[in-house]
Amino acid sequence: MSNQFVAKSRRLRSTLYSSRIEKQGVTSYTIYNHMLLPAGFEDSLEDTYNHLKNHVQVWDVAAERQIEIKGKDSYKLVQLMTCRDLSEAKNGKCYYSPIIDEKGGMINDPVILKFNQEKWWISIADSDVMLFAKGLAIGKNFDVTISEPDVNIMAVQGPKAFNLLEKIFGKEILDLKFYNFKYFNFRDSKHLIARSGWSKQGGVEIYVEDSKSGLELYDLLFEAGKEYNVKPGCPHLIERIEGALLSYGNDMDINDNPFECGLGKFVHIDSNIEFLGKDNLIKIKESGIEKKLMGVKINLDQINLRSAINLTVDNKIIGEIRSAVFSPTFNKVLGIAMINKGYFEVGQEFDIIVNQKKYKGEICPLPFI
Amino acid sequence: MSNQFVAKSRRLRSTLYSSRIEKQGVTSYTIYNHMLLPAGFEDSLEDTYNHLKNHVQVWDVAAERQIEIKGKDSYKLVQLMTCRDLSEAKNGKCYYSPIIDEKGGMINDPVILKFNQEKWWISIADSDVMLFAKGLAIGKNFDVTISEPDVNIMAVQGPKAFNLLEKIFGKEILDLKFYNFKYFNFRDSKHLIARSGWSKQGGVEIYVEDSKSGLELYDLLFEAGKEYNVKPGCPHLIERIEGALLSYGNDMDINDNPFECGLGKFVHIDSNIEFLGKDNLIKIKESGIEKKLMGVKINLDQINLRSAINLTVDNKIIGEIRSAVFSPTFNKVLGIAMINKGYFEVGQEFDIIVNQKKYKGEICPLPFI
Repeated sequence: MSNQFVAKSRRLRSTLYSSRIEKQGVTSYTIYNHMLLPAGFEDSLEDTYNHLKNHVQVWDVAAERQIEIKGKDSYKLVQLMTCRDLSEAKNGKCYYSPIIDEKGGMINDPVILKFNQEKWWISIADSDVMLFAKGLAIGKNFDVTISEPDVNIMAVQGPKAFNLLEKIFGKEILDLKFYNFKYFNFRDSKHLIARSGWSKQGGVEIYVEDSKSGLELYDLLFEAGKEYNVKPGCPHLIERIEGALLSYGNDMDINDNPFECGLGKFVHIDSNIEFLGKDNLIKIKESGIEKKLMGVKINLDQINLRSAINLTVDNKIIGEIRSAVFSPTFNKVLGIAMINKGYFEVGQEFDIIVNQKKYKGEICPLPFI
Repeated sequence: MSNQFVAKSRRLRSTLYSSRIEKQGVTSYTIYNHMLLPAGFEDSLEDTYNHLKNHVQVWDVAAERQIEIKGKDSYKLVQLMTCRDLSEAKNGKCYYSPIIDEKGGMINDPVILKFNQEKWWISIADSDVMLFAKGLAIGKNFDVTISEPDVNIMAVQGPKAFNLLEKIFGKEILDLKFYNFKYFNFRDSKHLIARSGWSKQGGVEIYVEDSKSGLELYDLLFEAGKEYNVKPGCPHLIERIEGALLSYGNDMDINDNPFECGLGKFVHIDSNIEFLGKDNLIKIKESGIEKKLMGVKINLDQINLRSAINLTVDNKIIGEIRSAVFSPTFNKVLGIAMINKGYFEVGQEFDIIVNQKKYKGEICPLPFI
């Protein structure tokens, strides 16, 4: 397989931290929300995986852009876009919420931060939710202001994350509950910190609005983190697949609905709230889904997936694998696959062709066990 | 400056032609509409530039995605999104049309293809216009169907493009007028071909809907093109800047309006049509613009621009350069820059710092002369 460089330009926006992480040895990027998102460092994938599971890493995840919805009709707009009931949402809390279109197709799967009824941030996966929100707000004549503020998130992730964070922010940070957020003082500034992040190793995301202070904090995290063996990192393919963290655009897209993606618990069709696609989702729930995201295990010691690969039984396509990686923990390739109706069963075997060779695999639950 | 690889995944969609161009030596990619867009080949930038200006190239520009608008209210929706008057648009013609938001900010600068009053394709630059269109259509209750069909464009560009095309499609292709499109037969299939493309060297774009036939055509173009010295290529930084072809996301974005981008001739505020941002654009026209895209020339023999760089006069910022390249024709660095009011003058000198060194430059018209 050939490798190509990223052709950089203003359109693939650099982040607040790009110049720093390039000095720190980033070797590959993906593009996320028209922005550079680090994808690999000089250490091997397995080394960075072991490091993340044992120490602490600081990630440049500024590509998780914020869409700010402000004004009188903010709640109405936010609720219209998501099938998750946010009518009882609390200030200072984060809500993982599928954003769907009028048919129930997945447009994004952001974390939504509620500041108050008239100010929300949608911390988006890789699609232009701002344009969807603008279109809806214009069409519905909502009294809102929609923008993408200059917020550059850095994540602190790993089992030693809170040791490091306590050194900088004091004991108060230990009281921050999962999926809550709060402003914390740092020198002459303050930063919004949420207990969240795109790993299962624990930690926080720091939503940097004050760039100068944010860079000072970034540097201090590395300085103060030496005793915890801190390293730069990024959302990690092995760790995220083992943890069954879904990736919009990889594991699901606008052709999939939240039931098919295993996100049924966030689909509140029984509530009184109004949201796009509700009627369709009610019908889908009644008639049952046609396909479903499942885990797969393949007897293979390496894979480099760049697009979906079909899974077959007796040469009949039964689904497609959308993300995959060799897992050191399971000692197999683990994958996230969209499986067709009739083959949803755990234990179902299939064939897959990788690099012209046929391999055997089996369907398993998500999360992996 | 460090280089990083593209971390490939399903989310950064491969095109119909990716496996072929990777065998043909693509060395760098940019990401455009969540898709791989070739950005460089093994030959040097100057060699591919000379080749494009003298021979013929086939480009994988499938990342120019199509947004299809179908149904009774199609024209209403398309017209709402663009400030260009399309009320007299003709079937079979292409229209370069700024898409703007309610404030007049640039959301995209696509070429719009009119099939008929109830079917349009928006051939988009790099932003999710489908989501904007969907939001508007839902909010306004328009009777339309909006989708992204599986169309993979290949461009045939260069002075010998029509020699090659005539060999395959016959004399009929020579009659295709600039910015017109038509279906042409190829073996058992047919392909939509438009006389257009993202270079000033002439040629066509082939909108491939039938993938199997499209790949056969791709291969035949290289086979039949040997006598014209055909090579794979891609939109070319030197050629596009010398030709002053604007790039959305690089030269302009949602914070700029079409007047500021030199696109005033596509802003039809004097017509009777209704479009988003019209009132705002009328005000802007009355009060005058605050900044303007201009050309710049810098006494420098190399530049590698990855984000905007400020231009200064006596240490005061007078604008920023957004795209730039060394031009062999002008023997200087040429750039496209957003210049602040008060400094619009051709001939205005400025300072710019590149790699810690200060250089002199001067503002010039677009297109460059």
